Amino acid sequence: MSDSIPNVLADRYATAPMRAIWSAEGKVRLERQYWVAVLKAQRDLGQSVPAGVIEAYESVLEQIDVASIMQRERVTRHDVKARIEEFCDLAGHEHIHKGMTSRDLTENVEQLQVFRALHVIRDKAIAALVTLAKRAAETRDIPLTARTHNVAAQPTTFGKRLAMFGEELLLGLGDLQNLIDTYPARGLKGAVGTRMDQISLFDGDSAKARELEQRILGYLGIPKSFDAVGQVYPRSLDLRTVSALCDVTSGPSSLCRTLRLMAGHELASEGFAKGQVGSSAMPHKMNSRSCERVNGFHLILKGHLTMASGLAGDQWNEGDVSCSVVRRVMLPDAFLAADGLFETFLTILNQMEVFEAVVEQELLRYLPFLLTTTVMMEAVKKGAGRETAHEAIKEHAVATVKDLRTGQINQNDLFTRLAADPRLGLTATDLSEILATHRANTGDAPEQVDTFVARVSILATQNRQAAAYQPGVIL
Amino acid sequence: MSDSIPNVLADRYATAPMRAIWSAEGKVRLERQYWVAVLKAQRDLGQSVPAGVIEAYESVLEQIDVASIMQRERVTRHDVKARIEEFCDLAGHEHIHKGMTSRDLTENVEQLQVFRALHVIRDKAIAALVTLAKRAAETRDIPLTARTHNVAAQPTTFGKRLAMFGEELLLGLGDLQNLIDTYPARGLKGAVGTRMDQISLFDGDSAKARELEQRILGYLGIPKSFDAVGQVYPRSLDLRTVSALCDVTSGPSSLCRTLRLMAGHELASEGFAKGQVGSSAMPHKMNSRSCERVNGFHLILKGHLTMASGLAGDQWNEGDVSCSVVRRVMLPDAFLAADGLFETFLTILNQMEVFEAVVEQELLRYLPFLLTTTVMMEAVKKGAGRETAHEAIKEHAVATVKDLRTGQINQNDLFTRLAADPRLGLTATDLSEILATHRANTGDAPEQVDTFVARVSILATQNRQAAAYQPGVIL
Amino acid sequence: MSDSIPNVLADRYATAPMRAIWSAEGKVRLERQYWVAVLKAQRDLGQSVPAGVIEAYESVLEQIDVASIMQRERVTRHDVKARIEEFCDLAGHEHIHKGMTSRDLTENVEQLQVFRALHVIRDKAIAALVTLAKRAAETRDIPLTARTHNVAAQPTTFGKRLAMFGEELLLGLGDLQNLIDTYPARGLKGAVGTRMDQISLFDGDSAKARELEQRILGYLGIPKSFDAVGQVYPRSLDLRTVSALCDVTSGPSSLCRTLRLMAGHELASEGFAKGQVGSSAMPHKMNSRSCERVNGFHLILKGHLTMASGLAGDQWNEGDVSCSVVRRVMLPDAFLAADGLFETFLTILNQMEVFEAVVEQELLRYLPFLLTTTVMMEAVKKGAGRETAHEAIKEHAVATVKDLRTGQINQNDLFTRLAADPRLGLTATDLSEILATHRANTGDAPEQVDTFVARVSILATQNRQAAAYQPGVIL
Amino acid sequence: MSDSIPNVLADRYATAPMRAIWSAEGKVRLERQYWVAVLKAQRDLGQSVPAGVIEAYESVLEQIDVASIMQRERVTRHDVKARIEEFCDLAGHEHIHKGMTSRDLTENVEQLQVFRALHVIRDKAIAALVTLAKRAAETRDIPLTARTHNVAAQPTTFGKRLAMFGEELLLGLGDLQNLIDTYPARGLKGAVGTRMDQISLFDGDSAKARELEQRILGYLGIPKSFDAVGQVYPRSLDLRTVSALCDVTSGPSSLCRTLRLMAGHELASEGFAKGQVGSSAMPHKMNSRSCERVNGFHLILKGHLTMASGLAGDQWNEGDVSCSVVRRVMLPDAFLAADGLFETFLTILNQMEVFEAVVEQELLRYLPFLLTTTVMMEAVKKGAGRETAHEAIKEHAVATVKDLRTGQINQNDLFTRLAADPRLGLTATDLSEILATHRANTGDAPEQVDTFVARVSILATQNRQAAAYQPGVIL
Repeated sequence: MSDSIPNVLADRYATAPMRAIWSAEGKVRLERQYWVAVLKAQRDLGQSVPAGVIEAYESVLEQIDVASIMQRERVTRHDVKARIEEFCDLAGHEHIHKGMTSRDLTENVEQLQVFRALHVIRDKAIAALVTLAKRAAETRDIPLTARTHNVAAQPTTFGKRLAMFGEELLLGLGDLQNLIDTYPARGLKGAVGTRMDQISLFDGDSAKARELEQRILGYLGIPKSFDAVGQVYPRSLDLRTVSALCDVTSGPSSLCRTLRLMAGHELASEGFAKGQVGSSAMPHKMNSRSCERVNGFHLILKGHLTMASGLAGDQWNEGDVSCSVVRRVMLPDAFLAADGLFETFLTILNQMEVFEAVVEQELLRYLPFLLTTTVMMEAVKKGAGRETAHEAIKEHAVATVKDLRTGQINQNDLFTRLAADPRLGLTATDLSEILATHRANTGDAPEQVDTFVARVSILATQNRQAAAYQPGVIL
Repeated sequence: MSDSIPNVLADRYATAPMRAIWSAEGKVRLERQYWVAVLKAQRDLGQSVPAGVIEAYESVLEQIDVASIMQRERVTRHDVKARIEEFCDLAGHEHIHKGMTSRDLTENVEQLQVFRALHVIRDKAIAALVTLAKRAAETRDIPLTARTHNVAAQPTTFGKRLAMFGEELLLGLGDLQNLIDTYPARGLKGAVGTRMDQISLFDGDSAKARELEQRILGYLGIPKSFDAVGQVYPRSLDLRTVSALCDVTSGPSSLCRTLRLMAGHELASEGFAKGQVGSSAMPHKMNSRSCERVNGFHLILKGHLTMASGLAGDQWNEGDVSCSVVRRVMLPDAFLAADGLFETFLTILNQMEVFEAVVEQELLRYLPFLLTTTVMMEAVKKGAGRETAHEAIKEHAVATVKDLRTGQINQNDLFTRLAADPRLGLTATDLSEILATHRANTGDAPEQVDTFVARVSILATQNRQAAAYQPGVIL
Repeated sequence: MSDSIPNVLADRYATAPMRAIWSAEGKVRLERQYWVAVLKAQRDLGQSVPAGVIEAYESVLEQIDVASIMQRERVTRHDVKARIEEFCDLAGHEHIHKGMTSRDLTENVEQLQVFRALHVIRDKAIAALVTLAKRAAETRDIPLTARTHNVAAQPTTFGKRLAMFGEELLLGLGDLQNLIDTYPARGLKGAVGTRMDQISLFDGDSAKARELEQRILGYLGIPKSFDAVGQVYPRSLDLRTVSALCDVTSGPSSLCRTLRLMAGHELASEGFAKGQVGSSAMPHKMNSRSCERVNGFHLILKGHLTMASGLAGDQWNEGDVSCSVVRRVMLPDAFLAADGLFETFLTILNQMEVFEAVVEQELLRYLPFLLTTTVMMEAVKKGAGRETAHEAIKEHAVATVKDLRTGQINQNDLFTRLAADPRLGLTATDLSEILATHRANTGDAPEQVDTFVARVSILATQNRQAAAYQPGVIL
Repeated sequence: MSDSIPNVLADRYATAPMRAIWSAEGKVRLERQYWVAVLKAQRDLGQSVPAGVIEAYESVLEQIDVASIMQRERVTRHDVKARIEEFCDLAGHEHIHKGMTSRDLTENVEQLQVFRALHVIRDKAIAALVTLAKRAAETRDIPLTARTHNVAAQPTTFGKRLAMFGEELLLGLGDLQNLIDTYPARGLKGAVGTRMDQISLFDGDSAKARELEQRILGYLGIPKSFDAVGQVYPRSLDLRTVSALCDVTSGPSSLCRTLRLMAGHELASEGFAKGQVGSSAMPHKMNSRSCERVNGFHLILKGHLTMASGLAGDQWNEGDVSCSVVRRVMLPDAFLAADGLFETFLTILNQMEVFEAVVEQELLRYLPFLLTTTVMMEAVKKGAGRETAHEAIKEHAVATVKDLRTGQINQNDLFTRLAADPRLGLTATDLSEILATHRANTGDAPEQVDTFVARVSILATQNRQAAAYQPGVIL
């Protein structure tokens, strides 16, 4: 027998609900439900459907044998025909797919998959925001050395850093929600979009054909449909979908990248699963493998974005965009990757640890440099000349850096030096006070956390079930 | 002297209003206006600004010497410092940029460039829709052979094909408008986003610092700002921007790709400029160079999308994303390309020609094949056996295709053959009637055009100035 | 039970040999063979390995239970550990993986997968060239209207068009072969690339550690290794790999895109499988679905190229590039897609048909326009004034085009018009002769086919087995 | 007057030689030289060219007025015609471009630009390797904490880390050199590649037409040409070009990314220009802006790679790939970015500093953890039980990590704790000896540096001029 190759994103990372949407079985099930829905609507609109036929189809809806369907496809070379035949043989009737062309089926069902998968990701983004808000609230007031260009710049707080990435996630969620709210289905419009096939079925009654489409949209739960569409819906909609997935995962990816940097300074760690222990020999070595994985998923999505953008704007006539095999790969994989990303991210948010003592040491190492302008102002207040004070501070600051880099010292002793310099007229006590006052001078950082937490709180109230979601165990 | 290399997108394709947004001079102007706006707001909120200072800055606002600024940058190695010094030297004062760090200036001004450029593109998309609706209305009822897989499939109308791509453009416009409506500025938040610098300037008065930001947002005309942002706004916002540009240009790109295909069949042409003539030797050779250019611009945008996605999710701490040089290239170029794309597209829409006679010939060539099921139904009505009719039609259809491909015939004579076959019992007149009836069987295509035209009409009413826009002369 | 999601590229398109390289089972097998090879080399270099141990491992080499290994991984959260434990438990010994870190195993084994997969693709590219050369030789002298900007431009031959795309494939093959020839393995170099772990194993004997690596390279069959590598080999090597796959599939993709265009003009068709028939109702509708699929595969590879480029240049220190999950997806999928692409392409090459009569009609339609300069020269020779002749020809050419486009005529009758114009002094016979002479004026096109065929012939002689390869049955 | 927008890559970052290749003036010059070369070859092969004509063209070769040419293009809408007319008007003759179509000019001249630009980049890559080898040799023996997953893993040396990235650059250089060695020109082959136009010019003498091409290839200095090419050379060659640029810049990009990480730990800095000083207030804040810029350039190239891959495999017939505007942007910009990248990288290599004392402190902080297995072996040698020793070490290691993270200690005192534990039987002296012995246990790292230096040395000898190149002053 041939070797098996599972979809690695589904197999290792994605969750059951997302897999159910994209599995071969799941798609067959959706198609069959869709066919039955169309058949019922056709009957209700006056098409003759013998008694028992719908029941016969419904009774075999779950008899899904993917191998058998594949066997048929190898003969017919037509995937939709294979699935029609299988379903009809099981039911013992030939009533489905009337007045329909392949794309009347596949476009809408694939859009339904996308639409449902968008909701799954939306809900996980909400769950991530809720956990992030909780962690931000917990660490709202822990002073932290903010870095720009990867170098210490000014104090902020740990919670604010989390809120910062959280706000990016909120923005991405808005984009995703807008996509969901405006997502149009292709609808039942025949081979080239004129609805001719459906109109023929109703003997030229255009109104009935439109009503049929409306009922099917209602069944799908997708509020709108394209109007002047061709054989296929425009592939820029797939571009927008994959782009929204990239967008909503950017905040998580940035947070994880930053956590990898912090782990390198031992300021924080992505944590371990309950019961899991690090290497006893090298207990310092807590690799940020989950954070790396989040960054990896994000890059995978960027690859899918290139695929999606390659399809957009490349339509030939009513719909030949050589997109078939691309969409078979790109759509499931993009959602499976996004699903795996959020599972991993939720786990990280639950388990991550801050090492407050190390955070404090880092801040104390840099704070004297960050406070030199404050020191100067205080010295001037105590009577020092501005130029003299500036000169003295500069002298000591440069010397301190030099001594740190050459290993003469390994603690920042700038304030000790300043206290010893009579030009400034500041005592060690004065300087200690400056340090104590300003180490928590984090501006509006705590309030920014509060605002973030409040916004998430509203969202959580509106989406209680999503907000309560907890990730499964990850690899 | 060194060779000059202009930005090719600006130089050859983009229009003056878009160039004005992104030119070196334009950016210096925006920055100076911004500094003056901040200075006024600071004064109004109680910061001391000596009389005459604001006027002095305002009086030199337009004395923009890019070379002089570049000369300063070569010394300071700091672009913002160079621009501060130049402006202050011209004004004879040093009051701007107080309590600000570089990013308080550059992030907001660059966002203002993006925000304004988004409006330019939005307006051109509306103009394109208006012209497209006009052309679709004109060609609403011209029957056209719809193609799927690039092969004749069913009748549609020319206008419907235009409406189809127009609806894709409408969808993209919705995405762009949503971006404009929700676009947040980074705001005045100091070196790492805590607003500490501004609060210090107001001696710890956080409320005043927030009020300052509000006033500056008002000046910018951008309704919202980030709250918990770091040094820079999250780069996923740039991803969303470039993605929206790709999205809104996908419909135009697909229409142009299809027009290139149609030109190959001589069904249509992108037309010529007034007075322009084709080669007299080869008058058939009307190259779709403008359509190709639209497709080319679209691909350039896809390259920018890769750049934008490369920045998203890659933030280090409060804001080191090594994005500087990337954004210097990507942001102007993406908008210049989109601007050039719409100018070219508008010109195409104005000039394109349909060759109705050729369109008709194509339809007649394929129509007999497309009507075989109808013929069978009519034959059965006249008394032919279903199986017999099917067999006869199949026989003749296959023979006709064979003869067309082998050159035995070069007109589709299937209906002549069918008329001659007694098994069907249909006369030449019967068959002519079928052909006449069905060549215009384009289902809801005309009504779909109407719906599209109506939607665009509402849009045009809401945006009269944009709707009236006409493109300039293109290369 | 959870829904299954197979890797769609493996499941539907790729062949067994390529699947075998990338399957879970295949990788476990390669790893075990590798461990045994290392163990043997260690023994040969003096490490003590008890009698029977190697045999024990070898005896269970094929007892591959992927589910059991996954079960272990869910406990250990470490994929390599899980596979070590499984193999050791089966063998009843713990001797493998000595002096090795995970990457000493995984980097080399993954590179072996890549290396072998590159050979599979190389061989299929050769097979494609052989078939392409055969088809080009067959159609060497069939005159064909060459098109530029999708518009008729000059005569060429069908065979030359094939040779043109064939030459692109040859160039891509050269790139791929160069990659194979210079592909370096990461080698056995310990946790950070200093070879410290191996040197320790040999009690500080650096020479023995190097010799061990040499033997393992010999086992792998990869001629070189990196020297100063870190934990992982540089990911730009993966970029080069995926880029070479994009490159070698570009010629096939361009040919298929052109075949889709030709099918739209009914000049050619990708053909049908033996016994397969088109729709009897619409026998003209031979969709180029295989060609579309080739273009689709090519776009998938472009997405992988974005993933690969995202990893390149992003190495952190000795090797943290958050590449793990990306490479799990990208490497197999890129090769599976390329494999599916070549299978499809080979099938197309075998089955494609030229419709010579239609090709001839197209040529005759355009030839009069293409020959106007020749006609002018002949008229001048016969005594017409140059200006007069030019004027006359231009007049008729423009009128002919107009009449074709307005449907006044549907055959190009320019030469009839010219024959009737006394200003030119050319008879119908003169003009027929010009037409007859020049319809085959295809310059060096036939000789270019010969050169291409000769180059492929040499390649085929050097690679007899590859050259004889025939594709399997495709979906 | 309209605002100017220079090409930002040319204006701010690229060097004069690279700008000269891609400037408007530079291209006009190349085209004119090319036309003259063709004219001379035509004359030598028997075409009649009146005396003085070639001299007339040569005398105006440098009278390049880009604005005048643009003015002509705005009238003709044909860029090549505009340049022909300008050159001919200046020379007072109309003899150039005979028997040529536009692409006989533009394809070859653009390829000459690419070919020359490839050599510029090749030479800078060699210069970078020479400097890198020098710096690696200087730091060959400085022990450094190697990191994997951004966490301390094992000792290596600073020089080895540089050699590691250097070896990646060497590999990329090999790829680039292979491209140069195998780069084929499109050649002089007429409108659709059959060479018909050239053969007609020589009255059907195919051999002369081929000889003309050979001579032009000789003039270009490009050793090969395509044989069966169409209107344009296959765009996969551009893909390969941009891919080679991405490849050769990956090593530099990885080194710069790592330097940014090291700067965050104050282990190293990208340094300052001579005379440049950091902020006196915050002398610790040496932003890695040049390193960030290198990473930025690399991302820009990845965007160009998406553009290039979008063109590859998209050829329509003999050559319509809607590539014109894309290549106008992509080709110059990719080379300008690569040029700017290498200038910046060379500057970094010249100026970067290692802070050895900080490097030493980092190593000492982690070394005790990295040496626990060694300690255990020594303890066992001194008579401790294996299990007892293991237990004791684990106990102390975990406690030490905990104390570091909670701030109980801020120096790693594991060895002090081990010395105090009687279970191990090791004295403080024993442990100091272990530490002293192993801090420099960097395996083959120094020898790997030597190998790298030797390889570069050979390269430098073969390319003396390139090896001696020094970068200009960067912004």
